[in-house]
Amino acid sequence: MKRAKIEFSEGFKDLCKALPQPGAFLLVDEGGKRNVMTIGWASMGIVWGEPVLEVLVRPSRHTFGLMETAKHFSLNVPLDKLQKKLAFCGSRSGRDTDKVEACGFHLLPGVTQGVSVIDGCDLYFECRTIHKTQVVKENLDPKLVRQYYPGDDFHTVYYGKVLEIYRG
Amino acid sequence: MKRAKIEFSEGFKDLCKALPQPGAFLLVDEGGKRNVMTIGWASMGIVWGEPVLEVLVRPSRHTFGLMETAKHFSLNVPLDKLQKKLAFCGSRSGRDTDKVEACGFHLLPGVTQGVSVIDGCDLYFECRTIHKTQVVKENLDPKLVRQYYPGDDFHTVYYGKVLEIYRG
Repeated sequence: MKRAKIEFSEGFKDLCKALPQPGAFLLVDEGGKRNVMTIGWASMGIVWGEPVLEVLVRPSRHTFGLMETAKHFSLNVPLDKLQKKLAFCGSRSGRDTDKVEACGFHLLPGVTQGVSVIDGCDLYFECRTIHKTQVVKENLDPKLVRQYYPGDDFHTVYYGKVLEIYRG
Repeated sequence: MKRAKIEFSEGFKDLCKALPQPGAFLLVDEGGKRNVMTIGWASMGIVWGEPVLEVLVRPSRHTFGLMETAKHFSLNVPLDKLQKKLAFCGSRSGRDTDKVEACGFHLLPGVTQGVSVIDGCDLYFECRTIHKTQVVKENLDPKLVRQYYPGDDFHTVYYGKVLEIYRG
């Protein structure tokens, strides 16, 4: 795979094309455990003087356990393709299915030691988790609480320092 | 002031030019209270299906009290200008100084009812606060804790739904 490094700020426009639909692949592959899930929400910015990518994962998700222990994650963004696999990885749990295998994904080593990425996407982020916090029920617009959290399954927000960002 | 609406994703590149230095003006002007402070950190993204701007404010700041009660805020981004005023608003407290007056800022009504913006900037965000959460000491890279929080003054992260984004 070719990897064309791009400016941090340049990635946002492409990322916005994928969010909230059809989404992007969040991949954790560390310590012999791996899982991929589809996310439709994310943020990018400068926090603590660092370029960050913020992703949200519900505690009920299989990926949550992996994110809690892994040092790194990658976000793999296909543009105008892989929609069926995005839908599949957003509706199946890694508890029941090896989604990497089921989707026929070819994982490649990232630029960063210990990070994997999914071959065939258009935009990649390799991140090291530097912070996590919570979506707080009492502090969220009640309309959004009703809409997104009927099961009180409030997201954890993971802040990844963006170590690498490139086009595939 | 002319206001040229832009795509949400387009604003990110300009915002990144201002962050972390020289920064941008965070303005709260509601219920007869107002204050402006300079911020160097922010994020943009899609969360809860909404376009959001996330800003961080320490509890020790005068702006914090205003953010806690206000429904809206604006981010006013000058590009390649107003550096001295950015430095001034980042080093003085609104407790001691009316920074709007000291800087000679001309406040204009925003597009959104109840929001004010600072005349003469290049990029504007008008936001309604829809969530807030905390930077959590135990979950933050210890190096960043040491670097940014010697006084345990951990930021609150405010998520603003971006109601309007335009160039001035």
